[in-house]
Amino acid sequence: MKPVAVDLMGGDNGPAVIVEGINVALGAGAGEIVVVGSAEACRPLDRDPRVSVVLASEEISMSDDPASAPRRKRDASMVVGATLLKEQKVSAFVTFGNSGAAMATALVKVGRIRGVARPAIAVELPVPGSASTVLLDAGANTEVTPSWLHQFAVMGSVYCAARLGIAHPRVGLLSIGEEPGKGNSLVKETFKLLTDEPSINFIGNVEGRDVMSDRVDVVVTDGFTGNVVLKSLEGAAHVFAHAVLGALSEGDDGVLDLALPKLLPLWNQMTPDDTGAAALLGVNGLFLIGHGASNARAVASAVRNARQLGEADVVETIRKLEGSTGE
Amino acid sequence: MKPVAVDLMGGDNGPAVIVEGINVALGAGAGEIVVVGSAEACRPLDRDPRVSVVLASEEISMSDDPASAPRRKRDASMVVGATLLKEQKVSAFVTFGNSGAAMATALVKVGRIRGVARPAIAVELPVPGSASTVLLDAGANTEVTPSWLHQFAVMGSVYCAARLGIAHPRVGLLSIGEEPGKGNSLVKETFKLLTDEPSINFIGNVEGRDVMSDRVDVVVTDGFTGNVVLKSLEGAAHVFAHAVLGALSEGDDGVLDLALPKLLPLWNQMTPDDTGAAALLGVNGLFLIGHGASNARAVASAVRNARQLGEADVVETIRKLEGSTGE
Repeated sequence: MKPVAVDLMGGDNGPAVIVEGINVALGAGAGEIVVVGSAEACRPLDRDPRVSVVLASEEISMSDDPASAPRRKRDASMVVGATLLKEQKVSAFVTFGNSGAAMATALVKVGRIRGVARPAIAVELPVPGSASTVLLDAGANTEVTPSWLHQFAVMGSVYCAARLGIAHPRVGLLSIGEEPGKGNSLVKETFKLLTDEPSINFIGNVEGRDVMSDRVDVVVTDGFTGNVVLKSLEGAAHVFAHAVLGALSEGDDGVLDLALPKLLPLWNQMTPDDTGAAALLGVNGLFLIGHGASNARAVASAVRNARQLGEADVVETIRKLEGSTGE
Repeated sequence: MKPVAVDLMGGDNGPAVIVEGINVALGAGAGEIVVVGSAEACRPLDRDPRVSVVLASEEISMSDDPASAPRRKRDASMVVGATLLKEQKVSAFVTFGNSGAAMATALVKVGRIRGVARPAIAVELPVPGSASTVLLDAGANTEVTPSWLHQFAVMGSVYCAARLGIAHPRVGLLSIGEEPGKGNSLVKETFKLLTDEPSINFIGNVEGRDVMSDRVDVVVTDGFTGNVVLKSLEGAAHVFAHAVLGALSEGDDGVLDLALPKLLPLWNQMTPDDTGAAALLGVNGLFLIGHGASNARAVASAVRNARQLGEADVVETIRKLEGSTGE
């Protein structure tokens, strides 16, 4: 297995927290890791025998124009890492930098799998008490066609099987009613395509309330709706956790102290730290985009997940399926 | 003030729970109420001096085709109630029946306000620790135009001011980034229209995470996205509350018993019982659609809210504004 490459630059909290996360991952047996960044950023890791350093003299920041960044900053860590992926020197590349620039870099430097119209962002939504739900597209494509959604469904199913170990993931199409005729024209057209797709286990339309449930494994939608749902749920989890802690602390009678150890596992599950990064499915290599604000735990998770997806050969599986559909 | 009319038929739990809710509302000083339904359903209320009974021989059920129901069942309680509203014999009409049929009935029997292209469903999303957020459209229109969203924004602002007592509600356009250029083409076009609308306090794009926050009062979106967000948040609140209670009950050490009284107010706020019904804005009268599964508390809330919206003259305000825009 080739190493996973990690971009040390561009995260909201600087390279140190990413280095810390890499050390956590190395301690947990993540295998060989390639780090990409400035000499200064790489220094804490450059004597570790499990780490290879690739220097990059530039950095894409949050203020860079996403679309033009990969062309203007050719020696940016994100571009150098993507090139390693393109040249198949690494099994996966993870960045915590500017997510728009990451998408542009993936498209320009790594390119799409032949037959894939558009890459989609797959995220894993934590569901208390059961496996996560894979949601895609979480924001790469604000306007889509039925055939793109069809491809998202196939790619999401492959991803879910590899990541969550579910043999025949239940794929649902996000709509506003379960019946086949419910939804907008995009959903109605897509419904037919998914019904006829033999490689997936299509269970029909699902509704918003199913996203955080054990009724579906993969939820397919356009990048506008997907992003709105993702952020709505993240916001709700944050507000709700805050409100619960606030309510429990009222009266200052020690109930919060008793409750907190019981709630912490749930709190940890609801934060995105266990997933660590979203995969950009449909590009010709495993390209993962982490939250800019990732902490060390999230970075370590992202590295672990990248390795797992590489071992499951997700990209090769998508490549074969898309080849077979002849699109 | 004219009475509020309530449909006793069509709710998931039968007329009894609606009658119970009306008694709660009457006890809390709801004023005069007109009930519409079968003789049997109305019987428990027919000697109450604060209640007028209007009999209806038919009932629209969940299995009726929504679009044709109001024409096929002319003496259905929903149709009779809508006719009372049309004839201005009541200030508002609340139904807990088939929501698709309710929309069709409102359009056929009550009609749109002159100048309004499409009615929109306005819902109030509870936000722990602050005022609710008004979200519209929550499902009436799966495909919309920028000018429809423009009207939704104006109507939502009027509704929010009346219901929540906010003088200049902050109106946000739901998108996937705060900057004016972010979103799909529908959002970009609508952004311009809302920027130029003098009657609202437009604060620009908002994201999913803002929906349950104190950063915005009215969130405007199409009925597809709005319905998905509404149901996603309802589902998340349910799952989250369940997970918190499950975590607190682990070990069976009494922590749950200590925590529960503190959490109940929050739980009550998160359920839709306090709102009770969603308003169909843009029709020529106050037409409210409640959850089919409403309990007595939700029914009482719906009656109270209908009365409040009537006192604030929401329909007349929308009528004047739409008249002034000349659409």
